[in-house]
Amino acid sequence: MDGEKFSVEAGKPILCKAAVARKPGEPLVIEEIIVAPPSHHEVRVRIICTTLCHSDVTFWKMKVYIFSLSISESLSACITASTLTVRFFLSVIACNSLKDYPAVFPRILGHEAIGVVESVGEDVDEVVEGDVVIPVFLPDCGDCADCKSKKSNLCSKFPFKPSPWITGDKTSRFTDVKGEVLYHFLNVSSFTEYTVLNTANIVKIDPSIPPSKACLLSCGVSTGVGAAWKTANVEAGSTVAIFGLGSIGLAVAEGARICGATKIIGVDVNQEKYELGGVYCNDLCLMLYFHFQTGKNFGITDFVNVGECGDKPVSQVINEMTGDGADFCFECVGLASLMEQAYACCRKGWGKTIILGVEKPGSQVTFPCSDVLVGGKTLIGALFGGLKAKSDIPILLKRYMDKELELDKFVTHEVSFEDINKAFDLLLEGKSIRCVIWMDK
Amino acid sequence: MDGEKFSVEAGKPILCKAAVARKPGEPLVIEEIIVAPPSHHEVRVRIICTTLCHSDVTFWKMKVYIFSLSISESLSACITASTLTVRFFLSVIACNSLKDYPAVFPRILGHEAIGVVESVGEDVDEVVEGDVVIPVFLPDCGDCADCKSKKSNLCSKFPFKPSPWITGDKTSRFTDVKGEVLYHFLNVSSFTEYTVLNTANIVKIDPSIPPSKACLLSCGVSTGVGAAWKTANVEAGSTVAIFGLGSIGLAVAEGARICGATKIIGVDVNQEKYELGGVYCNDLCLMLYFHFQTGKNFGITDFVNVGECGDKPVSQVINEMTGDGADFCFECVGLASLMEQAYACCRKGWGKTIILGVEKPGSQVTFPCSDVLVGGKTLIGALFGGLKAKSDIPILLKRYMDKELELDKFVTHEVSFEDINKAFDLLLEGKSIRCVIWMDK
Ligand SMILES: [Zn+2]
Ligand SMILES: [Zn+2]
Ligand SMILES: [Zn+2]
Ligand SMILES: [Zn+2]
Repeated sequence: MDGEKFSVEAGKPILCKAAVARKPGEPLVIEEIIVAPPSHHEVRVRIICTTLCHSDVTFWKMKVYIFSLSISESLSACITASTLTVRFFLSVIACNSLKDYPAVFPRILGHEAIGVVESVGEDVDEVVEGDVVIPVFLPDCGDCADCKSKKSNLCSKFPFKPSPWITGDKTSRFTDVKGEVLYHFLNVSSFTEYTVLNTANIVKIDPSIPPSKACLLSCGVSTGVGAAWKTANVEAGSTVAIFGLGSIGLAVAEGARICGATKIIGVDVNQEKYELGGVYCNDLCLMLYFHFQTGKNFGITDFVNVGECGDKPVSQVINEMTGDGADFCFECVGLASLMEQAYACCRKGWGKTIILGVEKPGSQVTFPCSDVLVGGKTLIGALFGGLKAKSDIPILLKRYMDKELELDKFVTHEVSFEDINKAFDLLLEGKSIRCVIWMDK
Repeated sequence: MDGEKFSVEAGKPILCKAAVARKPGEPLVIEEIIVAPPSHHEVRVRIICTTLCHSDVTFWKMKVYIFSLSISESLSACITASTLTVRFFLSVIACNSLKDYPAVFPRILGHEAIGVVESVGEDVDEVVEGDVVIPVFLPDCGDCADCKSKKSNLCSKFPFKPSPWITGDKTSRFTDVKGEVLYHFLNVSSFTEYTVLNTANIVKIDPSIPPSKACLLSCGVSTGVGAAWKTANVEAGSTVAIFGLGSIGLAVAEGARICGATKIIGVDVNQEKYELGGVYCNDLCLMLYFHFQTGKNFGITDFVNVGECGDKPVSQVINEMTGDGADFCFECVGLASLMEQAYACCRKGWGKTIILGVEKPGSQVTFPCSDVLVGGKTLIGALFGGLKAKSDIPILLKRYMDKELELDKFVTHEVSFEDINKAFDLLLEGKSIRCVIWMDK
């Protein structure tokens, strides 16, 4: 946290190590890259540690489409590390051939992290060199109608898109040593010793918080905890059903636990199962196994194995378990059919169904009109758990320091940066919830 | 309001006049009927005045199905006015041949009213003879989990159904002079000098409130005002879009007005239109015409004629008018396609769509998953505007007495009981919003 150490580089490109995703599904390559200095409203951050989230894996696996990179490849010889030059050529490319671009390579993935501000660009007054920050993929410009409102977390100045550029500018701050552009990811790109972020994507935090816990609030854990705490406002004594027990589903359970829910029903598909303290668990759900074994759990009191429901829709199973349905249903998978099931078993009169899972583009979800009107149910969609990054993450961190919010149990593994591909293996094998990747260990 | 006047009849059947719907779509017949004394948890009420709501017309037009009445007709000779006897036979019929029964005749329609308690049955401590009450179709037993909760208005002891019986008992309190059973309607049946109601369907009110205004809060006006005030919690300065400008839609506008909405967009289909103060109006929308002419209005600031939207979906028209969509959209028609349009033009980030319209049984409504999640929108269904009858109607009446809530403008016509069929004509011709029917004038 010694600002002096980095200030020698301020205003100049930094040569540092990054784990570059060069081709879909292939191991990341640790190589030297050039990180441009921050432009206006931007900061350059030295990453302390980062974690691997499912979204990284999704985009890492995704095949390239639309964008062949041929234009950028032909231009690469004349592109230097100069931000201005890069910006010019890439703007041209952006206008002509990039519309939607979920899969682009080479790219620097990673979006859950914590770091120290190395230098700041023009017009940055929110942080100074040496401040500890958490990057957040969802922009919070602080200035638009949404960011000023307590009710929205969907910035309208920087509408969220899986863009390959830095927020607010259709350019990259990364090049490899040959001068080739490396794409940004989810406005963050944390699998590198240094990254550049728009100030809309950083939250300044108390530097005394252990970095391997604080970084969890960068994305997945915040999303789940926020959905229970802020979007749903889960009440003490209530019944919660969670569809999908990945890390977001488990974070919903943690959020529901701290809100005082008394019955937390986990719903997932399991092929092999183990009964552990009355709860079924298996390979696809090893995090539960792991944590029940170690005496920690996520507050899940009941488990429904969708594979064992037979002819009954899972909503019927939950309606029977609860008598009237769950007070709060959370869909964390991203399947329209599961959203419909969740809605069908949320309690008439006051039930809320919260959609956190991301369905395929163009998909639709259908509900019986009678359930909507005569059921008096509420359906809410929430990105990042409805949290407003700059104001809500500090609240969650305080609750962690006050020992209300448990974060430690989410960290199942820790590796050094050079072993980053192990983090991918652990997640793909269902062995980890969060694997912390330390940059300097 | 002189209890003495009625107590001579307490405990005995009352012979009085009622407007009986004998056949679908045919004029009501004013005839003498016998009204049984109230059973336990019931009260018998002398109606002061009643109004005609669209639901009365819907059920009045509906063709008889499922239930031929043949069993009850063959039994009619042996059915007396004795509640116990009626109850016994009708219970048999109910178990054997009635499942769902929206259309049954002969029936006593009417569900918006105000009256005076004539006598009370056993176990009634909520009201005494002489109390002024408003009947409400949606039960509020005060005792079940829903009625005890602030969050629900869907009583689970008496789940709402369009039953032909009195609440809580599969029997009728009405017979004609030949002994034939007359069916109840929406737990109320107010087109009669006397009716019998379960205490779950009455709200005791301040007797000083003018009856022709108070009775409006029995159903339609409460539904619309409640939806804006309680379900949506419309905020000052917000933009509201109302789909369907019938009486419920206009009541939503009134609710939005008192909540301080600054832009209230009315959406309806009109074939002939008149421009009045910048607002289009026409035959199908004569209430607006009428009220703009008389200098009163419902706070509607903008009008969208769906018939003039051309190829554009109405949601697009509203998105363009508002820039970002309306903060609150209310669907008051009961068409799935319109619910989808409403959802499509509610503001991302904080927009709420409230469903008040009743679609056909079995119908479904479909939304793009991306609108739900990335849009951060909320969908809420509400029966009776989300109001809890016993606690919320007195609040609305107080706001009327405090001159905040305007009720007078909803009363466009008044007729005597013998002219009740004129009230039907006026509503069918689109000439009235609410026509007050006075029992003793
Ligand atoms: Zn913003
Ligand atoms: Zn993530
Ligand atoms: Zn109840
Ligand atoms: Zn009504």
